[in-house]
Amino acid sequence: MSFSSALHVQDGVPQPEQVSPYLQYKKKERLSADAYINGIISHDRVILSQAITLIESTSPNDIEIANQIVERCLPFSGNSIRIGITGVPGVGKSTFIEVFGKYLTSIGKNLAVLAVDPSSELSKGSILGDKTRMEELSNDPKAYIRPSPSGLTLGGVARKTRETIILCEAAGFDAIIIETVGVGQSETVVKSMVDFFLLLMLSGAGDELQGIKRGIMEMADALIITKADGDNISKAIAAKALYQSALQLFPKNENGWKPPVDICSAFLQDSIRNIWEMISTFEKHTKENGYFYTNRAEQSVKTFFDWMNHLLNESFHSNSKIESQINSLLSEIRAGNISPYHAGSGLVIDYLKK
Amino acid sequence: MSFSSALHVQDGVPQPEQVSPYLQYKKKERLSADAYINGIISHDRVILSQAITLIESTSPNDIEIANQIVERCLPFSGNSIRIGITGVPGVGKSTFIEVFGKYLTSIGKNLAVLAVDPSSELSKGSILGDKTRMEELSNDPKAYIRPSPSGLTLGGVARKTRETIILCEAAGFDAIIIETVGVGQSETVVKSMVDFFLLLMLSGAGDELQGIKRGIMEMADALIITKADGDNISKAIAAKALYQSALQLFPKNENGWKPPVDICSAFLQDSIRNIWEMISTFEKHTKENGYFYTNRAEQSVKTFFDWMNHLLNESFHSNSKIESQINSLLSEIRAGNISPYHAGSGLVIDYLKK
Repeated sequence: MSFSSALHVQDGVPQPEQVSPYLQYKKKERLSADAYINGIISHDRVILSQAITLIESTSPNDIEIANQIVERCLPFSGNSIRIGITGVPGVGKSTFIEVFGKYLTSIGKNLAVLAVDPSSELSKGSILGDKTRMEELSNDPKAYIRPSPSGLTLGGVARKTRETIILCEAAGFDAIIIETVGVGQSETVVKSMVDFFLLLMLSGAGDELQGIKRGIMEMADALIITKADGDNISKAIAAKALYQSALQLFPKNENGWKPPVDICSAFLQDSIRNIWEMISTFEKHTKENGYFYTNRAEQSVKTFFDWMNHLLNESFHSNSKIESQINSLLSEIRAGNISPYHAGSGLVIDYLKK
Repeated sequence: MSFSSALHVQDGVPQPEQVSPYLQYKKKERLSADAYINGIISHDRVILSQAITLIESTSPNDIEIANQIVERCLPFSGNSIRIGITGVPGVGKSTFIEVFGKYLTSIGKNLAVLAVDPSSELSKGSILGDKTRMEELSNDPKAYIRPSPSGLTLGGVARKTRETIILCEAAGFDAIIIETVGVGQSETVVKSMVDFFLLLMLSGAGDELQGIKRGIMEMADALIITKADGDNISKAIAAKALYQSALQLFPKNENGWKPPVDICSAFLQDSIRNIWEMISTFEKHTKENGYFYTNRAEQSVKTFFDWMNHLLNESFHSNSKIESQINSLLSEIRAGNISPYHAGSGLVIDYLKK
């Protein structure tokens, strides 16, 4: 596979001297849906980046064309392994993704790195915004890094990220990493869009663990203890034993996969290769028993229902009359003076009557 | 406090020879809201049972009057400790509730035992239906046992149970136990309506644990290992150590409470008393730091939002045109041929246009 990757895309924006053939005669104009789709399936990254920008747009015209692009990229999508990566700040996520990503491109993978960070508006691009954190990878022609869309609700970020996965797959990327900082419900959202969910942990099983939110450990398909080098190795090995015994307390995964615990170091290529081999084993195992495919199908169905629910709620709560009624009811509900059921029924009945 | 509990209520139905004063002249007729409310706050259990039946009714007239009753009981509610109890089948929930409940009434508590069992329609009253399982408690004049309402969705069961708690508190019950069998999301629902959530576990940390659903252990305010008597004691002590070390891996609860692990036996009164003392310590601790009250307030607020969401969804999905469109889209969505977002948006926009 050859990308038109001589074009350097910086922060998702094509540099002036590097104009894609699809753009030569149409600078600054919106392309036709056909042109975007042809660009994407020809592995043109500039077009890909522009199409992702359309997906992230809130303008009705952009949404219209973005929907067409996604819909028509669907037949070309699906041929990747989607890997979610989470861990508390300080665990070394960027370093891990940099080293792991370089390993993947070295064995011939085309890698897209995306992020789900609903806080990126507040914290001004807390993850993947600062590409210097993944300097080598961002200059790797076989890698494509796209920051989290900002200014959206988590439901919005989830939609944009899912649709970006479709486009990246149609553009020939066969390994997709989705990073999350673990703000709010973002791990659950990432878990719901990946094939394999990797939890990075620090050695030293004491205070560091306090940062891991409830339920995250149970979502993981593997636990990797980072920074297992130098003086840290014995601590990492002890942490591995501890997590292994803790994981035994959890029920089996429905996919028949027993989440392994391993240690790794960004300085030890073997430990990085082991992780890829583990993920490949998982892929093979779940493709053989069918879970890989049913999981994706059920993820899509769940997305469908969740999205309709999200839209119904969004429409309801964006009604200014409803919102002011809700706000005036809240203190009475907190005080236990009125029934949340009775109050809620009244509002919904009023809303649906219109 | 004296209940009009000479009246024997069997399965929530007053026996023919025992007619409540409020019913003497109005047999089979619906009372006025005033009569129900006066009956409840006078601790009349027959009236209480009838009011709960109204809450469980789906007839619009009954709902109307039930709403009034709940609303007007609210000022008399809140003065209880609400205890959720869960555990896999076979853990000895009924035996525990029987013995623990008898202990509570022996120290002067007025105890109501409710259940959240969304499967009760299917399994014909799998919990609390068979009162013979709690024979002593069901004959205890200071205890009131009410089975889970049947034939409802989990959202419906949750509403009925929450409203029943209000009525029971207004009727003078100062300890409320809510049992769950752990079907579907029932633990989450029970957790969201109680002050203290107790997880009963079996000793022997192997296969039995497989029955515990993911995330339940992290919800618990205490883990109690049951059947810790006879030959089982050493196994129970070993299980206690194991669970204690596992719980250390979890982050602290937001209420500053570190969930204890203890063993108990229905045959050892001391172990039962210890559990009550632990719950009392929790109540004191969380009342002092204010968590007890903010938790209840936030539970009500969450109920308010969840209920509006539930009604919006219910209304949407009970639209037969929408449902048939959804059904015809599902296989295409599973196959990855159409975007769940695009398809979902279309349906919701159509629905809200009407």
